[in-house]
Amino acid sequence: MRIQVDKLSTVFLSDQIRQQITDRIRSGLLKENDPLPSIRNLGSELCVSPVTVTKAYKKLEADGLIERIHGKGTFVKGGLFNAPYTPDKKERFQWQTEVKDYLGRAQFAKEMHLIDFDHPYNLAEASICPELLPTKQVVKNATNQLSKHIDLLDDYGTGEGDIGFRTKLATILKKDDINTAPEDLIITNGGQQALNLIINTFIGANDVVVIEAPTYPGIIDMLVTRGARIITLPIDSSGLKTDELHLICEKYKPKMVYTIPRYHNPTGVSMSDKRKRDLISIAETYNLLIVEDDPWSELTFTKNKTKPLSSYDTNGHVIYVKGYSKLIGPTYRLGVLSAKGTIIDRLKFAKSNADLGSSILIQKLIEPIFEQKTWEKYTTQLALKMKNRAEIVCKILNEHAPKELKWTYPKGGINLWCTLPNEISAVDLLNSVMYKEGISFLPGVMFYYDQPKHNTFRLTFSYVNEKALEKGIVKMCRLIEEYIT
Amino acid sequence: MRIQVDKLSTVFLSDQIRQQITDRIRSGLLKENDPLPSIRNLGSELCVSPVTVTKAYKKLEADGLIERIHGKGTFVKGGLFNAPYTPDKKERFQWQTEVKDYLGRAQFAKEMHLIDFDHPYNLAEASICPELLPTKQVVKNATNQLSKHIDLLDDYGTGEGDIGFRTKLATILKKDDINTAPEDLIITNGGQQALNLIINTFIGANDVVVIEAPTYPGIIDMLVTRGARIITLPIDSSGLKTDELHLICEKYKPKMVYTIPRYHNPTGVSMSDKRKRDLISIAETYNLLIVEDDPWSELTFTKNKTKPLSSYDTNGHVIYVKGYSKLIGPTYRLGVLSAKGTIIDRLKFAKSNADLGSSILIQKLIEPIFEQKTWEKYTTQLALKMKNRAEIVCKILNEHAPKELKWTYPKGGINLWCTLPNEISAVDLLNSVMYKEGISFLPGVMFYYDQPKHNTFRLTFSYVNEKALEKGIVKMCRLIEEYIT
Repeated sequence: MRIQVDKLSTVFLSDQIRQQITDRIRSGLLKENDPLPSIRNLGSELCVSPVTVTKAYKKLEADGLIERIHGKGTFVKGGLFNAPYTPDKKERFQWQTEVKDYLGRAQFAKEMHLIDFDHPYNLAEASICPELLPTKQVVKNATNQLSKHIDLLDDYGTGEGDIGFRTKLATILKKDDINTAPEDLIITNGGQQALNLIINTFIGANDVVVIEAPTYPGIIDMLVTRGARIITLPIDSSGLKTDELHLICEKYKPKMVYTIPRYHNPTGVSMSDKRKRDLISIAETYNLLIVEDDPWSELTFTKNKTKPLSSYDTNGHVIYVKGYSKLIGPTYRLGVLSAKGTIIDRLKFAKSNADLGSSILIQKLIEPIFEQKTWEKYTTQLALKMKNRAEIVCKILNEHAPKELKWTYPKGGINLWCTLPNEISAVDLLNSVMYKEGISFLPGVMFYYDQPKHNTFRLTFSYVNEKALEKGIVKMCRLIEEYIT
Repeated sequence: MRIQVDKLSTVFLSDQIRQQITDRIRSGLLKENDPLPSIRNLGSELCVSPVTVTKAYKKLEADGLIERIHGKGTFVKGGLFNAPYTPDKKERFQWQTEVKDYLGRAQFAKEMHLIDFDHPYNLAEASICPELLPTKQVVKNATNQLSKHIDLLDDYGTGEGDIGFRTKLATILKKDDINTAPEDLIITNGGQQALNLIINTFIGANDVVVIEAPTYPGIIDMLVTRGARIITLPIDSSGLKTDELHLICEKYKPKMVYTIPRYHNPTGVSMSDKRKRDLISIAETYNLLIVEDDPWSELTFTKNKTKPLSSYDTNGHVIYVKGYSKLIGPTYRLGVLSAKGTIIDRLKFAKSNADLGSSILIQKLIEPIFEQKTWEKYTTQLALKMKNRAEIVCKILNEHAPKELKWTYPKGGINLWCTLPNEISAVDLLNSVMYKEGISFLPGVMFYYDQPKHNTFRLTFSYVNEKALEKGIVKMCRLIEEYIT
């Protein structure tokens, strides 16, 4: 276990220690019954007083995460959202526990393992219902499509991806007003790898990064792992609060802002055009890198789709990231990032260091769906289907949900963000009621770095079929009502 | 540009600065005419005296890498193996040059870009000749194979890879005496990603890592990027010198040893069984992680293949890495790593953070070739073909090479390691003679972290067809003879 404290931070040292141990327990990196270092040892390792460590351990005990056994030491406690996930039961070697690692957190990985895909009412998985995906068509034409390009399959190809494929993607992205070109693109293994390359390349210990609260949990894991100083900024109905960002820039000199401006994950909110202009202007003033994560903007429920942040950027500040898993399915592990100038050059080197480039075979296999007309037709139809599902869900919620439950009406994407009464914990609700009834959703706590709102959860309407969706939401409403009263 | 110095190191500060700037120039991260920081600024940033920086700059100037222009500043010089490679010509934004990154080096990526695949005598590319690869067969059966597993293609699957595929790989690996099981495996995007996950997870600033000299250039890039303290250990005809490793362990307390024990890249040497036992025993004494990279041990030219290092390990010290690009082709981006206990658990989380898992589609597509019998038949035939090529090359060298050229007789793999007279630089030879005659090989300097042997080069006999191979080697011999005299 590697804990690091930042003595210049305004966060109490004991809270820093508490947060890092919490992260590792919630990630499953520390497992049930794993011993924690003694107070004396941890104190001397971090050069902090034993009193500070004691404070941290007492809080962790109060949080229900650890247990202090007199005369034996301090140990990690179990529980569904604590430490139970062991990928596989197997031998453990004592000496290995002394091997320090640089993994700060992997909470998203662990929580995803908790999703039971066999749940009839899986409202947790942010994927598209298999029957709506083009998988069958792609598989059917696989031999033909690959035969056509067999000469390209013999070599590594360029690390940034096949030029033919990048050209097609660039055309589609430009149609969406994204300021890009084939040479500005790197093909990645899903959006996740794009984010990972960016964070590993530009963010290191104590670099300040601003993220929205709530936000995509995967990015929190990456930032914690790099030892970044994370500043969270709540969003409102117009997205990231740019006026507050101004103050943060003055005070903390951030290097990067990570944002999901269109149909934000998990809240569904879109950034207003005014805020987009403000954000770019702030980036220019303070020389910020902006990561625009855009996983499902194609799934828009209104006539006029809002513009990408990238379209306002003329000075190379925005790194645009698009994962295609939410649109064409996760099996291709396909994503893309777009950036300008030396930023994209450096990311190309990072991609090469990471894996020498993504599979050319996959790119050629899936290429036909990225023909502009095919893509537009496919995504328009998928958007209609998702809009229909969103309407079904909202209708049922209007009819069946207890009045204490609040939710957002999404204008795009695949999620609703729900808020329970303050005193209700979504984790407890999931744990004690929903799971055994075959319903799963993602508790809101996952989406916060600090100060989590325990009474929130994300409800995904894209994965199960419509019938199960209807039945599941009705059932969920009834269970919530019973749970509250 | 981010330079870091380690004031506790025994390496002079000026040499540390020189090495890091050299790395960035050779990687193409610093390009021709890029300005270097002023002596005063760099000195104050690193808290070292201007005299130290001046010393570093003077050496870099003598190395022909930078140029000091009076009254203007210090700039990067061009030249084939200096800084010329720009992935694409494009706009540069001034503010971006101030954005620091954590990329220490990406020399392998850059040098690979220098290989001209259209060279008729490409003796640089370490891939198998396309016509020997199973690509056609795989493509032909793609539709059938994927249809069979279509249900698996709808979800992300587990981050560590498809269990059916891992089971097949485990069977094959166990046949080779590798101590593994399906749950000990992670499927990766080639061997490169496996190495990258290991290094990013376990190695950070100033962790000591021992590598062989020479070794695979990609690992040097990763270690430099993580800020590791790298200790190089020359190899002899029995591989890594374990007696010297003992002394290094006493003195520097390394955390990891990276080794290629079978048909070492680039020299072709295999570690003796005695040294393997020694290495494991050292690992047990000093709690070392050992990374065993094994890219092409299937391509053995002798009856009795030597055992993997992993087979001697009973205590979870060895992380075994196998990239399949050299055996089945690079288009699948397929590799695997095997480890035990908490080491593999932590790497599973790292893999999930990196890209949420490798493509299930690819795994199911290529699975049939990993049926044990098919695999054995395929690799046995491929080994015979490579053996034949090795014999052709050695025969031609015996007949045509000038007596000043020395080379290794390989017992497996796809490379020969060649040594020119001391005063001849392989880079110059390549640059001034070979390139324009359509011959390329990899200069030995690429394979060294420090103290490169400029008179060495790696000759790969696997990529071009046999006819071109014969013709190319004859021609190369003639050109070397002319160049020497």
